Amino acid sequence: MEAALEAAVTGSRLVREPEEIRLALLAARSAGRRVGFVPTMGALHAGHLALVDRAAADCDDVAVSIFVNPTQFGPGEDFTRYPRDLTADLELLARRGVRWVFAPAVEAIYPPGHTTRIEVGGPALGFESDVRPGHFVGVATVVCRLFQAVPAHTAYFGAKDWQQTRVVSRMVADLGLPVELVVCPTEREPDGLALSSRNAYLSPADRQRAAVLSQAVAEAAKLWSAGTDVAGVESSMRKLMESQGVIIDYAVVVDAESLGPVAAGPAVALVAGRLGGTRLLDNRALPAREVSHR
Amino acid sequence: MEAALEAAVTGSRLVREPEEIRLALLAARSAGRRVGFVPTMGALHAGHLALVDRAAADCDDVAVSIFVNPTQFGPGEDFTRYPRDLTADLELLARRGVRWVFAPAVEAIYPPGHTTRIEVGGPALGFESDVRPGHFVGVATVVCRLFQAVPAHTAYFGAKDWQQTRVVSRMVADLGLPVELVVCPTEREPDGLALSSRNAYLSPADRQRAAVLSQAVAEAAKLWSAGTDVAGVESSMRKLMESQGVIIDYAVVVDAESLGPVAAGPAVALVAGRLGGTRLLDNRALPAREVSHR
Repeated sequence: MEAALEAAVTGSRLVREPEEIRLALLAARSAGRRVGFVPTMGALHAGHLALVDRAAADCDDVAVSIFVNPTQFGPGEDFTRYPRDLTADLELLARRGVRWVFAPAVEAIYPPGHTTRIEVGGPALGFESDVRPGHFVGVATVVCRLFQAVPAHTAYFGAKDWQQTRVVSRMVADLGLPVELVVCPTEREPDGLALSSRNAYLSPADRQRAAVLSQAVAEAAKLWSAGTDVAGVESSMRKLMESQGVIIDYAVVVDAESLGPVAAGPAVALVAGRLGGTRLLDNRALPAREVSHR
Repeated sequence: MEAALEAAVTGSRLVREPEEIRLALLAARSAGRRVGFVPTMGALHAGHLALVDRAAADCDDVAVSIFVNPTQFGPGEDFTRYPRDLTADLELLARRGVRWVFAPAVEAIYPPGHTTRIEVGGPALGFESDVRPGHFVGVATVVCRLFQAVPAHTAYFGAKDWQQTRVVSRMVADLGLPVELVVCPTEREPDGLALSSRNAYLSPADRQRAAVLSQAVAEAAKLWSAGTDVAGVESSMRKLMESQGVIIDYAVVVDAESLGPVAAGPAVALVAGRLGGTRLLDNRALPAREVSHR
């Protein structure tokens, strides 16, 4: 099975053991090669592949991890039904010229008796954390663990999970993790829906409605440029999402870095909600401007 | 001042910036040199120097950090009065042939707006954490941060802070930090008192009494070998410590790794208490044996 998988991915190397990939990448670095890392949970779509392409453009060798991290799913969330198709993922990555695929077992990432958790605080507070308590503890802990196994120069994250990018960035700064982060633009369907492995859960009718999240943040950008205040922008996003039956988790305009109240720097419109039980999120950067607080 | 300090430490190099020491040590590693790391809070005594000597025996280059970490002190603890003498420390280390001394500013370790905290759980629960809430969050976070700045092959810790060694070991395993830990035996005064920078706080009379902690754990080892049960050993340690006026924080026999109830593996006798406001701790390894639970 392993051999068959590896044969299927000519040019890629499938590694299961953290220490094996670590030593391989250290050897690549010693040989003067620049290493890029794209951490994923598999079920790869064009959004992931855009990260891979960016990494390949920047770096000599690309490493992609495929690990459905149990600790970032809450009780009752979709950990068990989260889409998994390693063979398809490996084929996609091989075609992209990815050199290293790291797909560890859960026990290789979480050793027996593991108890360590990384709490980022700051940008991890609120929004996704309100809806998914403990989610970012799981994310931060696994990303730190993956960064130890995959000693890349640069790691690539998608802007779609904006809060996640701020959480990882805060952790990297605070712990001095020796990796540069690059956040890449969200890939979208023709109607604007942000690509997500979870889009596969949507019924055809909900799939139609789902485009409203991207419409809401596009509208936010328009209103923001026209000078509408934070409350006005938020209210407009809510109305749009509600018009399509989205059960809103949040629809806010916040500081793009801290996710606190809008300050002097750039802002971001963040939206999240559910359609037929499927969680969807989207966001859009808003330029810095004079702010009228509500 | 910096120049004067550096001149004082012929052969040692004083580094203030995390990125500078990181690159220097990566270069040393690339040149095939084995790097050992001794993290300290300064106020160096023979206990620290024994760690340095062990590192020097094992490795080509030794790096010592001197950083009085504010986050591992609680409110009302001795952070501000903790002994500091960088010049004396540098002289001691230079005489030991230490190649790198890393003495960062607080802001170099904790960047503006830092919010990330590492919670180890497991062996971090109880004992010191009961007396010093948040202490091991501060320890784990700073040790992880220091390990990023000082990419050594091996790090050396003293057995005197036994619970700390278990906390760091758990974190290293859980996060896959690429460093080997070596725990070195406690250095002692002729009367048995474990060396500690805080011993300097003791009045002459309390200094006399302080030897009772080492006597208590030595007595524990004797009773343990003779088959006394956990409760009996603990009670004997408490009586001895109370006889010298120690205000006991804890005096226990627990599993040496998990610090949970004594199990099949080796155990440890852990004691801590206060004499005249000065906290003292000690411990002693106890061999695995058939256990009679209380």
